[in-house]
Amino acid sequence: MASTPSLPLLKDELDIVIPTIRNLDFLEMWRPFFEKYHLIIVQDGDPTKVIKVPEGFDYELYNRNDINRILGPKASCISFKDSACRCFGYMVSKKKYIYTIDDDCFVAKDPTGKDINALEQHIKNLLSPSSPFFFNTLYDPYREGADFVRGYPFSLREGVPTAVSHGLWLNIPDYDAPTQLVKPLERNTRYVDAVMTIPKGTLFPMCGMNLAFNREIIGPAMYFGLMGDGQPIGRYDDMWAGWCIKVICDHLGLGVKTGLPYIWHSKASNPFVNLKKEYKGIYWQEELIPFFQSATLPKDCTTVQKCYIELSKQVKAKLGKVDDYFIKLADAMVTWIEAWDELNPSAEKSTELPNGAAAK
Amino acid sequence: MASTPSLPLLKDELDIVIPTIRNLDFLEMWRPFFEKYHLIIVQDGDPTKVIKVPEGFDYELYNRNDINRILGPKASCISFKDSACRCFGYMVSKKKYIYTIDDDCFVAKDPTGKDINALEQHIKNLLSPSSPFFFNTLYDPYREGADFVRGYPFSLREGVPTAVSHGLWLNIPDYDAPTQLVKPLERNTRYVDAVMTIPKGTLFPMCGMNLAFNREIIGPAMYFGLMGDGQPIGRYDDMWAGWCIKVICDHLGLGVKTGLPYIWHSKASNPFVNLKKEYKGIYWQEELIPFFQSATLPKDCTTVQKCYIELSKQVKAKLGKVDDYFIKLADAMVTWIEAWDELNPSAEKSTELPNGAAAK
Repeated sequence: MASTPSLPLLKDELDIVIPTIRNLDFLEMWRPFFEKYHLIIVQDGDPTKVIKVPEGFDYELYNRNDINRILGPKASCISFKDSACRCFGYMVSKKKYIYTIDDDCFVAKDPTGKDINALEQHIKNLLSPSSPFFFNTLYDPYREGADFVRGYPFSLREGVPTAVSHGLWLNIPDYDAPTQLVKPLERNTRYVDAVMTIPKGTLFPMCGMNLAFNREIIGPAMYFGLMGDGQPIGRYDDMWAGWCIKVICDHLGLGVKTGLPYIWHSKASNPFVNLKKEYKGIYWQEELIPFFQSATLPKDCTTVQKCYIELSKQVKAKLGKVDDYFIKLADAMVTWIEAWDELNPSAEKSTELPNGAAAK
Repeated sequence: MASTPSLPLLKDELDIVIPTIRNLDFLEMWRPFFEKYHLIIVQDGDPTKVIKVPEGFDYELYNRNDINRILGPKASCISFKDSACRCFGYMVSKKKYIYTIDDDCFVAKDPTGKDINALEQHIKNLLSPSSPFFFNTLYDPYREGADFVRGYPFSLREGVPTAVSHGLWLNIPDYDAPTQLVKPLERNTRYVDAVMTIPKGTLFPMCGMNLAFNREIIGPAMYFGLMGDGQPIGRYDDMWAGWCIKVICDHLGLGVKTGLPYIWHSKASNPFVNLKKEYKGIYWQEELIPFFQSATLPKDCTTVQKCYIELSKQVKAKLGKVDDYFIKLADAMVTWIEAWDELNPSAEKSTELPNGAAAK
């Protein structure tokens, strides 16, 4: 039995969001680490299906009917038949922090054979600052036994608040369909004992499988887009969110970390199905990356909401030419913010950042 | 006895540069890995002192008299009584690659207890491309068992030529004097099994203790500045070079990697002596970092030499206001390039980059 701290960190300040179409037997393995936390389960697909949750977990569950009832016409911004629906969970949460995990992710072991408490590591990542303005060669300078190395400016050592903690995966790596097809047997066996801040101005491919964030400071930008049923694209929900949050974190002076913790990703999804979902994304991303790399936000965008609305305008103006889909997506981004503010009436004010993290 | 490949990689294309003031007994431990390579030893301090080199190594040794004789008045650009003098070795080498190591660095062991062939790992880093334009969350995508993850644009997967490989240190971390004083007992025991590209636009603190580079594509920018005897500053030689090479690599579309290999750094230098050497640097770096972060080079700077001369002009114009030292340093940067071109008459042409790595 793995040990767990007697008082779990942030017990009353964090929700675990799980999108699923099946019984949540995978939670059994996570019991020592998740049991004390509240779960928000977003049921995808057929709402008449009954999802079984193991005994003893504290949870609320939303299916498509619930989403439609709660959001009314604004429910159009929440994807259907795609794990992108998970972002509805971010919206209905009332907590400061979110951890989201896929139901095919299990507890990984560290090199000593000990079960990894992924959630605890994410919380450590979120509660310690980030260092986006200068690279530290010994990785996370806030970690025990580490520090800033010679040549690191002292004025930058306080760091900035951490908005996002991006965890990794052992076993099945998060490859796109073409790479899956070319390397069907490749497994990630390398445990890299590091957490690092992704530098300002650098985009990264954010995977939603094992992800935590500070909902209060970045939540409204954590929209997973329009994917799946009725949409020309899938498997770009987390990527889209990652590009948006990175641009906004860079603008607001917030940090994004990647590295530890690892989870055990149990099975590869079907590469042929994935290829169908992804192929427009693979093509479009060649235009999306330069768009996000050059996106800048005006100084008066001082809240996440304002940043996100501004970004939606730029998406419509610049990516609308790539495909009509992006016009629809830009509109959905606005709907998402409207729905967020409706469910979180005090949020618009509270996401105004303190001086320490002012817009740069 | 550690095993070594029967045919060492790049045997006739790489020089090992070692700055020293003492007998090179430390080479005994490196014998299995260095024995087949040519060494360039730059003797610092009193030129009448005899430096003993263990039997069987192939080397050339330069003391201050040699440097003065070879460079004449241009010898003024080479530091004295400071390990910055090592860059003279880069200049007199005729090889494509350089590895430089301090004489208090020993062979480290990987987590399985095996001796790490640091040079072999550096060579692997230099011979595989870099990926500076987008972050790969599974670290070096060119490493065996790894690849680019989902969401990584295919157009960027070819990467760019790698100019620099920055290795790390187990045991004594490379801290500045204030951190040494505050944490005298801190040791780096964490073996992070990763190599990564430092993203474009991000500066890093480059340490010269365990460093390799492609002399042909970045050598003329690898100048370690004016430090030590007669100068107001020390211990910023490698930092200065790191900031300069990063700006130039970003401009020319070249890659800089950090991470593996580790060496074992045996003993901490005296923090009180270091504080005296560093204190102006600690103060000045607060102005140096913004300077290098905003430095841009014009499009017609298509060779490393042109980039470096242009950078020297910007140093004089912008940092000259910070202290007169930077006016002297800017002049020394020009002298360095003149001396480089004199000793490497064909270099100016050969460093003109192929189309694949054109100025961006």
